[in-house]
Amino acid sequence: MWKIDLNCDMGEAFGVYTSGPDADIMPLITSANIACGWHAGDPHVMRKSVELALEHGVAIGAHPGHADLVGFGRRSIRLSPAELKDYVTYQVGALAAFVRAAGGQLHHVKAHGALYNQAAADADLARAFAEAVAAFDESLIVVGLANSHLISEAKRVGLPVANEVFADRGYLPNGALMPRNLPGAVLHDPDVVAARVLSMVKEGRVQASDGSTVQLEADTICVHGDTPEALKHLQALRCVLAEAEIDIISVTR
Amino acid sequence: MWKIDLNCDMGEAFGVYTSGPDADIMPLITSANIACGWHAGDPHVMRKSVELALEHGVAIGAHPGHADLVGFGRRSIRLSPAELKDYVTYQVGALAAFVRAAGGQLHHVKAHGALYNQAAADADLARAFAEAVAAFDESLIVVGLANSHLISEAKRVGLPVANEVFADRGYLPNGALMPRNLPGAVLHDPDVVAARVLSMVKEGRVQASDGSTVQLEADTICVHGDTPEALKHLQALRCVLAEAEIDIISVTR
Amino acid sequence: MWKIDLNCDMGEAFGVYTSGPDADIMPLITSANIACGWHAGDPHVMRKSVELALEHGVAIGAHPGHADLVGFGRRSIRLSPAELKDYVTYQVGALAAFVRAAGGQLHHVKAHGALYNQAAADADLARAFAEAVAAFDESLIVVGLANSHLISEAKRVGLPVANEVFADRGYLPNGALMPRNLPGAVLHDPDVVAARVLSMVKEGRVQASDGSTVQLEADTICVHGDTPEALKHLQALRCVLAEAEIDIISVTR
Amino acid sequence: MWKIDLNCDMGEAFGVYTSGPDADIMPLITSANIACGWHAGDPHVMRKSVELALEHGVAIGAHPGHADLVGFGRRSIRLSPAELKDYVTYQVGALAAFVRAAGGQLHHVKAHGALYNQAAADADLARAFAEAVAAFDESLIVVGLANSHLISEAKRVGLPVANEVFADRGYLPNGALMPRNLPGAVLHDPDVVAARVLSMVKEGRVQASDGSTVQLEADTICVHGDTPEALKHLQALRCVLAEAEIDIISVTR
Repeated sequence: MWKIDLNCDMGEAFGVYTSGPDADIMPLITSANIACGWHAGDPHVMRKSVELALEHGVAIGAHPGHADLVGFGRRSIRLSPAELKDYVTYQVGALAAFVRAAGGQLHHVKAHGALYNQAAADADLARAFAEAVAAFDESLIVVGLANSHLISEAKRVGLPVANEVFADRGYLPNGALMPRNLPGAVLHDPDVVAARVLSMVKEGRVQASDGSTVQLEADTICVHGDTPEALKHLQALRCVLAEAEIDIISVTR
Repeated sequence: MWKIDLNCDMGEAFGVYTSGPDADIMPLITSANIACGWHAGDPHVMRKSVELALEHGVAIGAHPGHADLVGFGRRSIRLSPAELKDYVTYQVGALAAFVRAAGGQLHHVKAHGALYNQAAADADLARAFAEAVAAFDESLIVVGLANSHLISEAKRVGLPVANEVFADRGYLPNGALMPRNLPGAVLHDPDVVAARVLSMVKEGRVQASDGSTVQLEADTICVHGDTPEALKHLQALRCVLAEAEIDIISVTR
Repeated sequence: MWKIDLNCDMGEAFGVYTSGPDADIMPLITSANIACGWHAGDPHVMRKSVELALEHGVAIGAHPGHADLVGFGRRSIRLSPAELKDYVTYQVGALAAFVRAAGGQLHHVKAHGALYNQAAADADLARAFAEAVAAFDESLIVVGLANSHLISEAKRVGLPVANEVFADRGYLPNGALMPRNLPGAVLHDPDVVAARVLSMVKEGRVQASDGSTVQLEADTICVHGDTPEALKHLQALRCVLAEAEIDIISVTR
Repeated sequence: MWKIDLNCDMGEAFGVYTSGPDADIMPLITSANIACGWHAGDPHVMRKSVELALEHGVAIGAHPGHADLVGFGRRSIRLSPAELKDYVTYQVGALAAFVRAAGGQLHHVKAHGALYNQAAADADLARAFAEAVAAFDESLIVVGLANSHLISEAKRVGLPVANEVFADRGYLPNGALMPRNLPGAVLHDPDVVAARVLSMVKEGRVQASDGSTVQLEADTICVHGDTPEALKHLQALRCVLAEAEIDIISVTR
């Protein structure tokens, strides 16, 4: 029996500013990564997002990012491992407080944007990230790019992990995502996307940009919630998975 | 047998900027209120301050304040109770994460600056503050101005409380602190200060600005850590308390 | 011959977050108040907004507000006059730089949200505001609530002023706007709004909430740009003014 | 007749936090680079620093940096040229407003910390920086690392430039500063420092870390104002320059 988790970044509104259609998306996903107020989100949005996730039985993750609201956490900031560690502790703690206040339980941690990429590519930053999570709560699942440094460092400190794959993104032969400025970095054909999802979930592999095969474990698929087509993509993905008799369920420790 | 707690605001450095002599003060106090990054402090400072408090067996409190670093949280911001509640949850959670990561236990919560005064004087804000703390952890002690709305609202939601008094500040007949711009608002004579401390701790009363007597419970004395004379005042206070055979010990739940 | 200026707050987007339909509104107004990055706006948005205003020949104003992005500058922060003065200088200078870089000329300054109300109601803050503007450029027009302290203080320091009126807001007998939580504070009937506009522009008066008459000079009408109906209201307003043969033109020094 | 400018970063306090002894240093320098509130400084500090510079006849420069107060602008943030351009416009405009309000004239622009290094090493960022300055005021002098991309790009857009050298820093053979983690990156021997200054000012060259000679024009020497020894270094430097009959004077356009 196959299974997969569908995760989506939630709670990215801020003050008077709105973001994606969280209320529509939440019923369709199994894991929500909730922004912690540094790259997006604010305390009010965090509380509402946690409550919305709990209403729908969606597993709640902290989604820490760079302190760069104007850049939405997408710009790389050169941090030391010690800085990263403290920043993750801070943000995970803040989000966890809303979960605890609402009677829920924090389930996982996933970095956002540039921090996600830095923790995937740099072993020292990856270790600092994993250490921050483990010191706070060693039962938390670390969600990271499949095959990345973050996954191996999280395992090394004894944390449960979830390998994340991207249904609509091209992969380089080494398993990294293609940079967005390259042709083929983002896939739009629903049939292609569907076929790749099945290959990743059932066979643990995907075709890279040069035609070679990348081996990857797929525990959770990232769905982008802030595009106009997000809902449609998500519904299509659920259909494909249902037809293939793949269970959609959050990752277990 | 009499007893009293000595509390001090700690962890008010930020980035390259330093603040008071925390390392010298920590051994002399029994409770540390650690800034949570909004009005002062940053994640690195928070971690170091938590570690320092644990080394010295000092009870750790979260010290939430307004999001106003340039104003050091001293300027009143008109918040709704709902806003205040979420802001307290956020900051308490962030600080609690560092305590948990260091193997300690959060002990109390005390608001900072303008937020302290607003939660003392406004019953709706006081209730929101208390509800935020209770929803997060109902064993946390709320430290508030003796006789204030915050104390009564915290009791109402079932939280343990600590009545805070100020040894070196003048009181109005209604139990509020004298505004700093009035003559007599800040007391400098060590003998006067010492006498007032003993009166507050042993007899539960202090003379107000008009000569009348204010009744107040005194569970904890606030010592200011960011003045040049902080250390001297603290040492003098400990002498006075020792001579009077008053135990210096953190507040118990 | 009658004339009036139509002003609208513009440039309130921030980072990935969007705000009102500025590109649709700009052709319909004669003055744009552009946010300066403290309560809304960011440097990119400021530059684009300035360029858009210049394209349409719209008079450009700096729109300083409180440093409170999450509260959109709508929450009162207790500032000293000296603080307010420096904050206005900073924000006006930042916006003026984009105007200068684009080859334009800054035309006016209007405070935002809570800062607008504080500078209208408090003579000391009003004077500080006026002094900041005058010290930077004494040819700048200060836009303020008609009859308010800001208007009189700006006149006192020799600045040109523009009395602002609100077509869709109820007035108290003393000329202040009705607080939004009172019934009748916001008017929705287009005929009522149109009649009030004509009365304010042509006769310099409007009926207050108690039926009495408020005298007010009307140099500029504020149109809200961040509501779904903004465009419709603006077009209706232009029709009413055109029928009444009132020129729509920015305020001259 | 030889001449050189002595520049120092000023106005790096923030809110309640203090920084270097600006009042002592200002009389000893000829150019002050004043922080613009993003990596350090706040509007109050900016105004006071401008006034202090004007009192002492010191040439005033805007000192823009990354929006990273907690990191003091020392951490590289990956910006696009368009982002950098708008950020420079914003900060230069804000500082220029205080200069104008105080009756002075802005003299130069120098980037801070990581932004300084990025604009020195990356031609696209350097061009964006120069374009921002030129669009605001083409008479402003751009201060940049001698021989860097920033100097050549500033010249290309027609701006006057000042080549900056560091008396107490080691140089790589290519003219870049030695990274601070390498031995010899920071020089402490006053005699060595003095000899290097004379060589740089009079002969336009300095010995690199490998013994080779780096050719560099020296228009201004950077003196660090935030170290305990800053004053002593500055006084020693002035002695050396006076003995060598080198005029200490700000850079002219």
